[in-house]
Amino acid sequence: MHIEMLSKNKIKLIQSLNRKKGRDESGLFLVEGNKMVEEALRSDFNVETLISTPSFLGQLAGLDSRAKELVEADKESIQKASLLQTPQDSMALVRLPANTEPEITPNTDLMLALDFIQDPGNLGTILRIADWFGINTVICSENTVDAFNPKVVQASMGAIFRTSTVYTNLEKFLAKAVAAQLPVYGTFLDGKNIYTEPLSAKGIIVLGNEGNGISDPVSRLVTQKLVIPTFSTGKNKPESLNVAIATAICCSEFRRR
Amino acid sequence: MHIEMLSKNKIKLIQSLNRKKGRDESGLFLVEGNKMVEEALRSDFNVETLISTPSFLGQLAGLDSRAKELVEADKESIQKASLLQTPQDSMALVRLPANTEPEITPNTDLMLALDFIQDPGNLGTILRIADWFGINTVICSENTVDAFNPKVVQASMGAIFRTSTVYTNLEKFLAKAVAAQLPVYGTFLDGKNIYTEPLSAKGIIVLGNEGNGISDPVSRLVTQKLVIPTFSTGKNKPESLNVAIATAICCSEFRRR
Repeated sequence: MHIEMLSKNKIKLIQSLNRKKGRDESGLFLVEGNKMVEEALRSDFNVETLISTPSFLGQLAGLDSRAKELVEADKESIQKASLLQTPQDSMALVRLPANTEPEITPNTDLMLALDFIQDPGNLGTILRIADWFGINTVICSENTVDAFNPKVVQASMGAIFRTSTVYTNLEKFLAKAVAAQLPVYGTFLDGKNIYTEPLSAKGIIVLGNEGNGISDPVSRLVTQKLVIPTFSTGKNKPESLNVAIATAICCSEFRRR
Repeated sequence: MHIEMLSKNKIKLIQSLNRKKGRDESGLFLVEGNKMVEEALRSDFNVETLISTPSFLGQLAGLDSRAKELVEADKESIQKASLLQTPQDSMALVRLPANTEPEITPNTDLMLALDFIQDPGNLGTILRIADWFGINTVICSENTVDAFNPKVVQASMGAIFRTSTVYTNLEKFLAKAVAAQLPVYGTFLDGKNIYTEPLSAKGIIVLGNEGNGISDPVSRLVTQKLVIPTFSTGKNKPESLNVAIATAICCSEFRRR
């Protein structure tokens, strides 16, 4: 092993992972930043290629043996390949996990279902919240931003490695849940107070689009409509909460009980 | 009144409001985007100058009379002056409110205190959460990002007009609260479970820096240490929640009781 410049082909591959097409074609996604690369190596994901400066490699204390291929590169060529504004000393090319829809039974653990979340930062934050509250599965509508978009991976602060994200037809999925008599929760302006309604430890919490909330076809599949009430007493009241904030409050309420 | 190009001096003034120095010198802050401009006009803040296209002015239905000065401008010159990536049809120059520290009594309503929040998006989101939960005052340490930074104003989605932000020496302020026997709450890894601890409807909730949490001098003034417990059961556990997410969960827990 010797320190090398990253090849033109490797740089081209890395940069192709910024787009869904590139990820689908190679079956890989990009992890940047030393802390995130460490998380990838500690996770159950398959790290195909670890790219690291020799000095960061020393800090990894053998964790690098988890990678199939190791490329020692100088900082300059990592910077050249990086999609970050402030590139660090390592990156990892990681195999995309299988997209397997979970079985639904009346005992299915609490899950989140995302209906057209568009902002990568919001999705990353939602994954981080799910991870914190021990929610292992996040179902995403097909028009939700891709969880393996580098911006989502970054914003998830490692939660991407600990939470299973599944892209599927959300209406069909929720219809199965309804048929299995699993409660499907969602927040609506005319819902019932989340702080006083009975909440199940099983079921699905649906979160809607940043601008438009839960879409009409999906809202018809919600069996328990909830609201996070405002405590504002001013003449001009706030209209809404950010979707990640609403997710946090819902998860906190479901889990504390 | 006729449609005009914005003068060079007006454009210079507008763009100076991107920096704290410019805001301090003019005593103004910048509000961009049609919805935000409407919120400014509906609020108790003093709108010094409303800049609008004639067509948006028509939609304001007389609300524009709340502005001291009205400049009808064409979209091109609004675009030229704008700090936004996607400029809209209006902007407002609004007078900075007084920075008056609230009196502390043992009956002081629930407040937030921010210890070195650096990210404008986080501060805007925190103001939005405070507004939702009817928390009227947000005390900011002197090293917290300025609430009248255009990015904070934008991220607050109008909460900046409904929440009083006060910049002060946070340690001195909290020392007064402690002397008045007002509870000072903060979240720490070794705190007591927020879901089971008794929480007062009065007091101050301290939120810490994005990377480092609550600073040592401030943590010595926290009288009630809390923790938001993780429900993660995996081998690799998440380390932390984003500060805005932690704020949301704290506010929700304090207010629901």
